[in-house]
Amino acid sequence: MFVYEKKLQYPVHIVTPNPRLAALIISQYGGPDGELGASLRYLSQRFSMPYPELKGLLTDIGTEELGHLEMIGAIVYQLTRGLTDEQVRQAGFDAYFVDHTTGVYPTAASGFPWTAASMQVKGDPIADLTEDLAAEQKARVTYDNILRLSDDPDVNDVIKFLREREIVHFQRFGEAIQSLRERLNRKNVYYMNPSFDQ
Amino acid sequence: MFVYEKKLQYPVHIVTPNPRLAALIISQYGGPDGELGASLRYLSQRFSMPYPELKGLLTDIGTEELGHLEMIGAIVYQLTRGLTDEQVRQAGFDAYFVDHTTGVYPTAASGFPWTAASMQVKGDPIADLTEDLAAEQKARVTYDNILRLSDDPDVNDVIKFLREREIVHFQRFGEAIQSLRERLNRKNVYYMNPSFDQ
Amino acid sequence: MFVYEKKLQYPVHIVTPNPRLAALIISQYGGPDGELGASLRYLSQRFSMPYPELKGLLTDIGTEELGHLEMIGAIVYQLTRGLTDEQVRQAGFDAYFVDHTTGVYPTAASGFPWTAASMQVKGDPIADLTEDLAAEQKARVTYDNILRLSDDPDVNDVIKFLREREIVHFQRFGEAIQSLRERLNRKNVYYMNPSFDQ
Amino acid sequence: MFVYEKKLQYPVHIVTPNPRLAALIISQYGGPDGELGASLRYLSQRFSMPYPELKGLLTDIGTEELGHLEMIGAIVYQLTRGLTDEQVRQAGFDAYFVDHTTGVYPTAASGFPWTAASMQVKGDPIADLTEDLAAEQKARVTYDNILRLSDDPDVNDVIKFLREREIVHFQRFGEAIQSLRERLNRKNVYYMNPSFDQ
Amino acid sequence: MFVYEKKLQYPVHIVTPNPRLAALIISQYGGPDGELGASLRYLSQRFSMPYPELKGLLTDIGTEELGHLEMIGAIVYQLTRGLTDEQVRQAGFDAYFVDHTTGVYPTAASGFPWTAASMQVKGDPIADLTEDLAAEQKARVTYDNILRLSDDPDVNDVIKFLREREIVHFQRFGEAIQSLRERLNRKNVYYMNPSFDQ
Amino acid sequence: MFVYEKKLQYPVHIVTPNPRLAALIISQYGGPDGELGASLRYLSQRFSMPYPELKGLLTDIGTEELGHLEMIGAIVYQLTRGLTDEQVRQAGFDAYFVDHTTGVYPTAASGFPWTAASMQVKGDPIADLTEDLAAEQKARVTYDNILRLSDDPDVNDVIKFLREREIVHFQRFGEAIQSLRERLNRKNVYYMNPSFDQ
Repeated sequence: MFVYEKKLQYPVHIVTPNPRLAALIISQYGGPDGELGASLRYLSQRFSMPYPELKGLLTDIGTEELGHLEMIGAIVYQLTRGLTDEQVRQAGFDAYFVDHTTGVYPTAASGFPWTAASMQVKGDPIADLTEDLAAEQKARVTYDNILRLSDDPDVNDVIKFLREREIVHFQRFGEAIQSLRERLNRKNVYYMNPSFDQ
Repeated sequence: MFVYEKKLQYPVHIVTPNPRLAALIISQYGGPDGELGASLRYLSQRFSMPYPELKGLLTDIGTEELGHLEMIGAIVYQLTRGLTDEQVRQAGFDAYFVDHTTGVYPTAASGFPWTAASMQVKGDPIADLTEDLAAEQKARVTYDNILRLSDDPDVNDVIKFLREREIVHFQRFGEAIQSLRERLNRKNVYYMNPSFDQ
Repeated sequence: MFVYEKKLQYPVHIVTPNPRLAALIISQYGGPDGELGASLRYLSQRFSMPYPELKGLLTDIGTEELGHLEMIGAIVYQLTRGLTDEQVRQAGFDAYFVDHTTGVYPTAASGFPWTAASMQVKGDPIADLTEDLAAEQKARVTYDNILRLSDDPDVNDVIKFLREREIVHFQRFGEAIQSLRERLNRKNVYYMNPSFDQ
Repeated sequence: MFVYEKKLQYPVHIVTPNPRLAALIISQYGGPDGELGASLRYLSQRFSMPYPELKGLLTDIGTEELGHLEMIGAIVYQLTRGLTDEQVRQAGFDAYFVDHTTGVYPTAASGFPWTAASMQVKGDPIADLTEDLAAEQKARVTYDNILRLSDDPDVNDVIKFLREREIVHFQRFGEAIQSLRERLNRKNVYYMNPSFDQ
Repeated sequence: MFVYEKKLQYPVHIVTPNPRLAALIISQYGGPDGELGASLRYLSQRFSMPYPELKGLLTDIGTEELGHLEMIGAIVYQLTRGLTDEQVRQAGFDAYFVDHTTGVYPTAASGFPWTAASMQVKGDPIADLTEDLAAEQKARVTYDNILRLSDDPDVNDVIKFLREREIVHFQRFGEAIQSLRERLNRKNVYYMNPSFDQ
Repeated sequence: MFVYEKKLQYPVHIVTPNPRLAALIISQYGGPDGELGASLRYLSQRFSMPYPELKGLLTDIGTEELGHLEMIGAIVYQLTRGLTDEQVRQAGFDAYFVDHTTGVYPTAASGFPWTAASMQVKGDPIADLTEDLAAEQKARVTYDNILRLSDDPDVNDVIKFLREREIVHFQRFGEAIQSLRERLNRKNVYYMNPSFDQ
């Protein structure tokens, strides 16, 4: 079970409203490579992961990603606080506003509600961990792109923290898959499930 | 942020594998009225909820629902442990198995991956809380239906616990909307946002 | 069966083309809380609604919402009549135009085609009516938001009429659920199906 | 606007419950080529259809299809009335039941909720009418297939009526496109919009 | 099987970057009436098409459409080469950029990832060929609309080539359906499968 | 552009109809980890891949996967040839049959039409190649699962061939990412784009 601790993993203090930027950053809330997909992927995969330390790794990272989801929500919320009428009407935010006002809804920047079709739980330890490596790389690129699109230092400071964490997670999943390969079969260069191929 | 506590909110101990039942109960993991939608709905709505005690209520219930999601995942996992070949092949589980083996994936019983289109964050306190009342009623009916479909006492004991919690949440959301109505306007029988109608 | 009467429930006469506004108002045609979802929800729920007067209420309101869907279609159509080349090319309408020209297509403002995943028919009278209360609140907020985004008096006059109707429907569904609760069990404060809990 | 007339276009009286058959016939309620898509397609296309008699044709057929949607809903409802516990649990209906009990929900037989992605409104008279020809052919095949899967004479009598109507609609759309071609350009064998090609 | 020939069916040489135009033309890559849907529709329908020459026709056109998909990809890629920071940030491209950088992803202009729900394989020769007629008409209109939105001669030269090919395909499918009708039943004006109606 | 060669990459000769097995194997046609997603992913990613030999690798494998898609289509088609009435009606195939007869439609075994949401083109060479590693692993597991569900030697012979090819592709993508890492930065153990991190 989960316990809520009333603080963010890393502080979020945005001074300047910027609804267009909010409408882009929302992609890390509910977009194809965002924090919702990350946390749900890891917290779901852990059930069928056969080794306790890998189960624990998925639980740890999945729980941390829930905190990242919250941080992204806080950024979006703060970027849309106290908007003037004119800011609400600007082309980059009005399509979001008409259906969600300034609520935080899990959608991609493109306007597509989050779908579990963008993640997989394959029930196979090597396939699941390779999926996780890919997920972390894709999240890293999304953060790269947000940094290219934003020049708000308050936002970018938080985005850099989150991007750094994805890189750490990538490394931890890489170590996990390495240890799994060694455990399964030292010469299994194809990342197969050797029990099936015997 | 969230902290993981290594126990379930209520214990899950399933003795008898039953893949067909797993393929139905998965709907409370990733179906239209399941625990993923519940937790994400409440944890997302809280950002724009204007009163601290309502924000706190959404956080509390949303966090508890994350624990329910975990419990449903545990039920599905335990119902599909150690399957024989024949059990894997049975018509009610094979379509799930081919794409997810015995991993726990957020899908409806009908085979439709979870989509955020099944929930809403409207950024309006009355609309969001009324959505929450509906969500709890729909979750309650899904649990009713699972009880009609299952005769495994180990499963039903847990389902009854979860169903009971939905009823408590419904009551708490009902009290919240009542207090909000009183706060907004004692005579606002239409549940409108009075600031707009002035 | 349905009979078409060749007039709108309330007249729509838009003088000034405004494709950006059309691309937002389309959300009440095919968006998550729009008139298509409303009419289909009520006209579908009525089959399993056990009491004739509630079945009749769902049929009445569902049929009226079909007329609202038509009114929204008329607004979108009139806002995009006789566009100049420059108006067609403007950023707020070109993505819609490329795939639908100026046809009226059931999509959300965000560009997501309407999906039945945004509504529910639960086959339980209390759950279905609570869903309907939520639907009317969410539609009301969408109309609030359109009024915030539009300053065309021809449009706003119609939107205010439609918004008013949602409030009336909300009230009627509220009365229906109240009468249903009394019928089921006077002390059933949890809105449960008492037949299951005995 | 629409007026509801309290009778079906053609009577539906099913004697024998058959939940598996209901779970297949639902595809004509909310499946890719069903009556919801048909009615919404025609009632949406009419706004941009430039000639009054074609606008009227789309309105007429679209309104009739709303009545067919109602007939399919009645079939599904009657096939699932008064089910025994055992009938509810059978593999062909349980996945539907867990999320919708015996409510009538717009989904395909495959379990996929109806999506507007399965229809198009192109804002071009020739493209829209050709889409309508295809829609009627696809609906006709679905009814063919239901007749192959069902041996209930009460059901098949109604399905044959509906199938017959699709064939009549196909013929009427064929005549409409023929008259449109003649109007646009007698030699336009390519079904193009000649205004663009000049 | 397929063999790749390292050239485009028709050359693509775009000089001027234009990310907004790229974000519209992408609809012919992954939009509802684009080249992905076209090729997949024809290459899938051919399996159940009963006559060798129609099977061959579907294979030929389906294979050509794969080459058109490649040409559209090349247009999108060339329109987004070497963007300046300012061009990346412009409102019409930033939502795409945040999730895909300048990669070519199969999405509609509206931001909706391609879905097979927008095509059908009905397993009936007349229904499938009528669907194909509609598909070609809808693709033709999309190209019409791109020509209305673009004033880049390098782009428009290629779009005109592709549009011309859709018209040729429409004519070939029209001839195919004509020969099929004659083969099935000379008087079958309703385009039915006569084997079912006997 | 692509040229069709009228033979399968590997022969498919199925003797025994088995519609239930067809309804499972279809997942490699249009399921989340199937051949459609594979070919489209690689053929789309190649546009933004910066090095000619990696662009060539993606084109080669993407083109081969088009041939695998065709082989899977041939398996599904042959497994459903000449069905008796009773075979058509069996629970595992009827939901597919009602909407597609015995046509080959791109859907998952679970009944969910293929969606591009299940793949990504990130426009970043390391992220895209890591996604490809994951895709090959997931396809390999799906083939493992089909082998667990099928005991038809004619089918399994082909499935083993396809599974073997996925393993070869995985290895080739692994070598590609290794060479890319060396090129980018010999010590870049995090698989980052070093140009961004300087």
